[in-house]
Amino acid sequence: MDRIKADLIRKLLHAKAPQRVARALDRLAPADIAELFAVLSPGETVEVFDILFDARRAAKTLAELPYDYLTSVLERLDDERVARVVSRLPSDDATLFVQALGDSRREGVLEKLPEDHRHEVQRLLTYPEDSAGRVMTTQFIALESESSAHDAIERIRGREDVADSLFHLFVVDNAQRLAGTVPLRRLVAAQPTRTLADIMLKDPVSISALADQEEAANLVSKYNLLAIPVVDDEHRIVGIITVDDVIDVIREEATEDMYLMAGLDGQDRVFSPTSTSIRRRLPWNMLNMATAFLAASVVGLFEDAITTAVALATFMPVVAGMGGNAGIQTLTVVTRGIALGEIEFSSGMRAVFKEITVGLFIGLLVGVITGLVAWLWKGSPTLGVVLVTAMVCNMTMAGLMGAAIPLGLKLLRLDPALGGGVLLTAFTDSFGFFTFLGLASVMMPT
Amino acid sequence: MDRIKADLIRKLLHAKAPQRVARALDRLAPADIAELFAVLSPGETVEVFDILFDARRAAKTLAELPYDYLTSVLERLDDERVARVVSRLPSDDATLFVQALGDSRREGVLEKLPEDHRHEVQRLLTYPEDSAGRVMTTQFIALESESSAHDAIERIRGREDVADSLFHLFVVDNAQRLAGTVPLRRLVAAQPTRTLADIMLKDPVSISALADQEEAANLVSKYNLLAIPVVDDEHRIVGIITVDDVIDVIREEATEDMYLMAGLDGQDRVFSPTSTSIRRRLPWNMLNMATAFLAASVVGLFEDAITTAVALATFMPVVAGMGGNAGIQTLTVVTRGIALGEIEFSSGMRAVFKEITVGLFIGLLVGVITGLVAWLWKGSPTLGVVLVTAMVCNMTMAGLMGAAIPLGLKLLRLDPALGGGVLLTAFTDSFGFFTFLGLASVMMPT
Repeated sequence: MDRIKADLIRKLLHAKAPQRVARALDRLAPADIAELFAVLSPGETVEVFDILFDARRAAKTLAELPYDYLTSVLERLDDERVARVVSRLPSDDATLFVQALGDSRREGVLEKLPEDHRHEVQRLLTYPEDSAGRVMTTQFIALESESSAHDAIERIRGREDVADSLFHLFVVDNAQRLAGTVPLRRLVAAQPTRTLADIMLKDPVSISALADQEEAANLVSKYNLLAIPVVDDEHRIVGIITVDDVIDVIREEATEDMYLMAGLDGQDRVFSPTSTSIRRRLPWNMLNMATAFLAASVVGLFEDAITTAVALATFMPVVAGMGGNAGIQTLTVVTRGIALGEIEFSSGMRAVFKEITVGLFIGLLVGVITGLVAWLWKGSPTLGVVLVTAMVCNMTMAGLMGAAIPLGLKLLRLDPALGGGVLLTAFTDSFGFFTFLGLASVMMPT
Repeated sequence: MDRIKADLIRKLLHAKAPQRVARALDRLAPADIAELFAVLSPGETVEVFDILFDARRAAKTLAELPYDYLTSVLERLDDERVARVVSRLPSDDATLFVQALGDSRREGVLEKLPEDHRHEVQRLLTYPEDSAGRVMTTQFIALESESSAHDAIERIRGREDVADSLFHLFVVDNAQRLAGTVPLRRLVAAQPTRTLADIMLKDPVSISALADQEEAANLVSKYNLLAIPVVDDEHRIVGIITVDDVIDVIREEATEDMYLMAGLDGQDRVFSPTSTSIRRRLPWNMLNMATAFLAASVVGLFEDAITTAVALATFMPVVAGMGGNAGIQTLTVVTRGIALGEIEFSSGMRAVFKEITVGLFIGLLVGVITGLVAWLWKGSPTLGVVLVTAMVCNMTMAGLMGAAIPLGLKLLRLDPALGGGVLLTAFTDSFGFFTFLGLASVMMPT
């Protein structure tokens, strides 16, 4: 949505010309209209919503809003209208909307939904957050394996609700267990009398409704699927996750990893209000302050050494900075490798040994240069030797910790990216100062 | 691919039982076999390749390998076999394979391809790397708008090469310009005599062959597409990018952003050989060393002040660490916001002002705590005041720079993530030391 179109629509709103607004919106895709909401005032938001609502496009448009925006738009609408919007959405979006309402309004809106829709949403809400069951849609077609290709085509013709996004049929046995999938192209090309059992792809990849949505995304990505069937404990199909939702999951998970590494709350976005961002970042900054004091107290142990040789203070940032940088490199490679499943092409132990070796060698190379510079600058060969030794130790340990932190978190079934950057630089700062200043107070004459 | 299956297959290889290996591989998906290559020795790699080659599954399996592995597997195969594998691949994968061969072997393999295939690959190689043209496939079906639904279904039946992954037809006008798309479901549901013009979705989203592949990924993601048509200057369709390739692009771009922020080469992976990783990381570490010396030289300016009040050395890591952390938070939010297009829901200037405000407030909160601790610990209220002031200044500037660096790089049409972390911490270290030590030497009695 470019600024010019947005300005035009706001002018038409101010001119009280809703029909012209409606015509302008009619030419835009839901994802573009959603961007418009970012620049509208609360009053304008409700006006645009009303126009979309009359054109039956409100549901699809709101479904394109980032979660934070959705929450604030829903706050401005009454229960009646929210319920009507929700009832027009596919089950996965409907569940998301009801979740976005907040505890106080949820029951009120659920009551106003048509009964079958209400039961559906309530059932989906019982799946844990971030599970496959929570992100799946229940709009799919499953047929028994004895059905003919002709029957299947008739069934597709009769189902308006699954619309253009239907590209596979799912085939079940007589106990309703998932047995295969039929890509639409095979159905089109098949003789009308052939059974689905004849033309289906057997033993399709599927996922349990209770599995993590990230696992669903990894399977879709690994096996190049367009949709993955979601099954219950008895292997009966209960929903499907489509690739467009998988893309959202992949982007979300990448964001989450980057955020966790930097020490950020997942909902802290560029467009979040300033006060929200401050509140969300403060705990991480407090944690970082605690780790910074740890590093400071290590330095505090060696104040005498620094008073005697103040050049130590000058080189402190080099030891800490280089260790932190090398550690973040390792942490990023290993965390991303775990997320992408690339660690399958290697192994945890191999990764740890490799990163230790990389740290050792790079530490040697940059350590020797730093040591030489220090010698030339400050005229003290001992300072040079202390620097080389401290940097090699710190960068080797940075390699070890950069690999061990995410792999350890994974073993503990926690997110491998969790707070990695903050923990790691806390370690490389403290350990770096300890080796550097400790060595100096032993080796340098006082 | 679990370790047990991999061990079994290696045992069968050692037992010289190729038929049993073939049967074991037959039950695995190409993506799973690809993982097997990670644990095979060079000799075993060639054996497994031969078995797959005879089963005509080598092409699809190699297409699932990470780029680095593909390069090293191709090195072990002769031109003849590589050419036969390449000739069985869709155009996008074929182009990637030829690119992975390296300059010296490329011509030799190209010569051995069937003529039309060779021209196709050569044509696709003329598109710039990372462009939409480079990642598109030319396996698609385009029909004129006057064709009937019946004709279209006959065409699909006749085209074995597009197989199960066909879910849309593309519709062109009589000048071969892209006019619409027909989802397969619409075709199945339509009366056989209706024309494609009747049932198509008009004015589909498309992308220029010369556009960046990231743009294609953003369009597919924004508009929930399964494939995006790629057009030339005259708006004629020249290929399509399918959603499975888009997922790869999205993951690659997220990796690239994380890597650039951490100062890493895109090809440096968990499974890269140690020597390769050292070589690829060294330039970034040299850059970081230069910036670390900048910070050190700032500290060097104030050695007198530190000698007088050694507590300054103790609190240096707090000022630098907190500034760096706050800056990385801002940098991550803004860089990710640009990548996800969320900045469309806000604006660059708004983001900069917000981040400055966030930095100012968090700086005040943690600065006051740090100042109080310093006062209590070292008994100097002046040290406390100097710390508060320096931290507020540094964290406010960190907010400004964390937002300005990626937005500035974007304005310069560079990657917003480029070296962000290294540059930013260089700034927060140097600026932090300068304000902290500078203020101290002015305000604290010598």
